Amino acid sequence: MLRDISGFSNPLVKRVRSLRDRKHRRREGLFLAEGLRILIEAEEAGTLPEMLFFADVSEGHPQVARLIAAVEAAGGEAIRTSVDILAKLSGKDNPQTVIGVYPERLTPLAQIDRTAADIWIVAQSLRDPGNLGTILRTGDAVGAGGLILVDDCTDPFAVEAVRASMGALFTQAVAATRWSDFVAWLRAGPGQLVGTSLRTETDYQAPRYVSPTFILVGNEAQGLPAAYEDACDLLVRMPMLGKADSLNAAVATAVMAYEVLNQRRATKGSG
Amino acid sequence: MLRDISGFSNPLVKRVRSLRDRKHRRREGLFLAEGLRILIEAEEAGTLPEMLFFADVSEGHPQVARLIAAVEAAGGEAIRTSVDILAKLSGKDNPQTVIGVYPERLTPLAQIDRTAADIWIVAQSLRDPGNLGTILRTGDAVGAGGLILVDDCTDPFAVEAVRASMGALFTQAVAATRWSDFVAWLRAGPGQLVGTSLRTETDYQAPRYVSPTFILVGNEAQGLPAAYEDACDLLVRMPMLGKADSLNAAVATAVMAYEVLNQRRATKGSG
Repeated sequence: MLRDISGFSNPLVKRVRSLRDRKHRRREGLFLAEGLRILIEAEEAGTLPEMLFFADVSEGHPQVARLIAAVEAAGGEAIRTSVDILAKLSGKDNPQTVIGVYPERLTPLAQIDRTAADIWIVAQSLRDPGNLGTILRTGDAVGAGGLILVDDCTDPFAVEAVRASMGALFTQAVAATRWSDFVAWLRAGPGQLVGTSLRTETDYQAPRYVSPTFILVGNEAQGLPAAYEDACDLLVRMPMLGKADSLNAAVATAVMAYEVLNQRRATKGSG
Repeated sequence: MLRDISGFSNPLVKRVRSLRDRKHRRREGLFLAEGLRILIEAEEAGTLPEMLFFADVSEGHPQVARLIAAVEAAGGEAIRTSVDILAKLSGKDNPQTVIGVYPERLTPLAQIDRTAADIWIVAQSLRDPGNLGTILRTGDAVGAGGLILVDDCTDPFAVEAVRASMGALFTQAVAATRWSDFVAWLRAGPGQLVGTSLRTETDYQAPRYVSPTFILVGNEAQGLPAAYEDACDLLVRMPMLGKADSLNAAVATAVMAYEVLNQRRATKGSG
């Protein structure tokens, strides 16, 4: 179904705009993704938006036209509107060409098949949505199975997280749980839990990692709680030659994940 | 010299607040850094602020008191004010305890001693200040000498860049230049220019990197222009197993920089 919306006070415009706010996302069970590139990544991962907003001026764009047809064929709504209303929906002066509204979907921990991938990423009390999205994007690149959020993390469906994920939110499984539940689940099956920490002398290139490897990364400011580190099979650290002795959380995760991937590539003789 | 400012309309408050804007930074030659951790990193790197704003409530904090004394001893101004005015200066409801005002200082390319470090990072048309700051922070960690900004990059003195750098802006040399000037300078001395690209099949772990290694990273959306890739000594790519075939620019830089560092550690037998 295609319809037009031209009024700023249209109730649907207000409702969709409110999805920039976590409280409204939770109530509606919906979130926003912006930009043709991300929406096409989502489609390729098998997910179409329930609602697709596009600017009348971009209707002739072949990829936009194809996306409109796909959304309509799947029973979703395609909504033609103005650049100004897209700007209102996105909160930016130069909005993306398209905005999609998607159902939030977390994967229950119990439904995760850990044997489906060699690498899983576990983040504890991650605060920054940009870091969360960047970690998802890295997870996609290294062939991780997904991201397990432990304790109170920032919202994976925040606009900044979705944007930074560049579509990986649609390819990576995302679970959210408490630490005790995670540990109980982890120890009920195979898996090596590797924490990145400054409180160890073990270089991150020294151990041979075992599949499935669970890379555990802590809060940006505090790192991992000591009790969580104690629960790890291994603690490792990246060499740091500088004064600050710290790396951005998404960077540390990526350096670690590429080490695990590189070891696996070497083992498989495909490096 | 210590003074108190309690009025929101104080001209200095307005002037310092205006430093959140690039135009005003250029005119004044000054920029803002926020938070005790970053200001202490700066001090340890030998840089004190010209002006130090602190909240009256935090005057008793030992590290704040020490910083105040150091700024005054160096002839700078320490300015006692309210949390509300700090919030106005920082544009955040929960401001940091301290805000420093520093002179902008770029290093002229001609003054860079390339033999002082094994790794240098070169960014071309980088758009995101968070990425720029994160790259500086990574540079500090891998022992890079500095960051060379080529063409129109985002401002390294933007508040978001300074924040993401976590103080590395004060430890890393930062130069800004045009591509042709960079290439002329580079080719006048030793140095291997390594571009990260999707247009090559060379795995980033295959080559042996030569010191000093210049890691060249392109714009977040477009990557490197073809002509710039042609000027590289080597083009390499990170393996990407996912659908998106992309990494965040700061993440790609870090994965690459750690590979160079790891090769050097192995050569020196200190890994």
